[in-house]
Amino acid sequence: MSQLQLNSQHRCFGGSVSYYQHDSQVCNAPMRFSVFLPPQAKTSAVPVLYFLSGLTCTEENFTVKSGVQGKAAELGIAIIAPDTSPRHTGIPDEDKEYDLGSGAGFYVNATQSPWQQHYQMYSYVVEELPQLVESEFPIIPGKRGIFGHSMGGHGALICALRNPNFYLSVSAFAPIAALKQCAWGKKALTHYLGDNQQLWDDYDATELIKRKTWLDKPILIDQGTEDNFLAQQQLLPEELAKACEQIGQPLNLRYQEGYDHSYFFISSFIADHLQHHKQFLI
Amino acid sequence: MSQLQLNSQHRCFGGSVSYYQHDSQVCNAPMRFSVFLPPQAKTSAVPVLYFLSGLTCTEENFTVKSGVQGKAAELGIAIIAPDTSPRHTGIPDEDKEYDLGSGAGFYVNATQSPWQQHYQMYSYVVEELPQLVESEFPIIPGKRGIFGHSMGGHGALICALRNPNFYLSVSAFAPIAALKQCAWGKKALTHYLGDNQQLWDDYDATELIKRKTWLDKPILIDQGTEDNFLAQQQLLPEELAKACEQIGQPLNLRYQEGYDHSYFFISSFIADHLQHHKQFLI
Repeated sequence: MSQLQLNSQHRCFGGSVSYYQHDSQVCNAPMRFSVFLPPQAKTSAVPVLYFLSGLTCTEENFTVKSGVQGKAAELGIAIIAPDTSPRHTGIPDEDKEYDLGSGAGFYVNATQSPWQQHYQMYSYVVEELPQLVESEFPIIPGKRGIFGHSMGGHGALICALRNPNFYLSVSAFAPIAALKQCAWGKKALTHYLGDNQQLWDDYDATELIKRKTWLDKPILIDQGTEDNFLAQQQLLPEELAKACEQIGQPLNLRYQEGYDHSYFFISSFIADHLQHHKQFLI
Repeated sequence: MSQLQLNSQHRCFGGSVSYYQHDSQVCNAPMRFSVFLPPQAKTSAVPVLYFLSGLTCTEENFTVKSGVQGKAAELGIAIIAPDTSPRHTGIPDEDKEYDLGSGAGFYVNATQSPWQQHYQMYSYVVEELPQLVESEFPIIPGKRGIFGHSMGGHGALICALRNPNFYLSVSAFAPIAALKQCAWGKKALTHYLGDNQQLWDDYDATELIKRKTWLDKPILIDQGTEDNFLAQQQLLPEELAKACEQIGQPLNLRYQEGYDHSYFFISSFIADHLQHHKQFLI
């Protein structure tokens, strides 16, 4: 019997959007995600692209707001969007702050109490979720890319850079590009990983890029110039760009004039991102 | 000084999405709407397309979920999406039922107490809103179409059929096509207009089509076959189709296999609808 529970399903662009939940082993809690299967998946296996969302989001925001399905149907790519954290775990104050706990998993494996029992989002994203998805849906083995927005852009970058053979492609919208240097990151990493900042490097895209794991492939990043979190020094794409420059990492960092941090920004450039991934997935 | 209050603005597909509110004279209450201006509007006036939303929606649902902006930017069409009713009017129980009062204006001019002081959505949509929009934004005079979904599909049809010289084009997604024959309509019309069913005809698309006001132009309607409200006899597109057949009204009613009533259905066919309107607006 499948461990997946289908919550709802909608025909979309000739394919389907489905919302699932399942009992996650690594998070020791129910986890939810959405799946878009393009029409091509009815007759053959397709590549898959994982999208990681930002702070406060669930699996629904990207699924309903990004407009990703049109281009994904055209190119024949499946899209998986997981929730951003476990929820209703019983951890005290898990819902108290928007940037810690529920909706704010930061794609790390927590080592500190009270989080470590459930907040294992890194392992969830790079191991349990793809194993589940790729055994349950018609996905071509190994044809796998990852992208995300803000906290999820950070997530996509760290997952790809640490697993360069597992993911064929990576891109991000307004990612938190240097987690240990920004206020969001300092707070989250302290709570989830403790005070030893050397351990933080494994979750910092700017530190990871220096390991030269991704040198042979370009990274696409879009960043709105009117993004309030850019102004607040939470995103720091210039730090990532500097590190890429130093080691010769191909980076296509596009500053998009006048765009903010919203899904209106994401939807405007989603087709470009799918086109980027297509080069490596199809 | 402008009577419009800008609540937020977002760059989108080279144009902008803006949320406004203003004090409506006809509704005697604040009203809200969203505006998408395509990039072409920076240098010249553009045609405008009004979208009316369904039960429980605000001006936001269509704006964030339909993906309309990509195609509208390509074609150079402005999109206006008003809220579906006045809100916070002080009418007792205005928020009590999802299909009456807030979020359920049904695009009629109420004549009955307690609604008639505020629920004048027909006049709002066909008079006050276009006057305001077309004086404040770079819209080509007279280049105006209308479309909508469910209750708003009904709204688009009745507004167009009663004002065939004002609107150049009309289309609908899963419209309530025969308001006086369905349960939603019987309830709303009784409360808003009273028991004299002859007065109801002015707000029933199937009755209005018989007046032969739109004969020279086709109407596009998409209807999902797995739409639960179709099964519940709330939509009745077959009644409208029968009336169109009788009088020779060109109707392109497309039953879309497997689609439901959601915005995933709308987003799948939104580009087709803009293409339909483009024939008459550009």
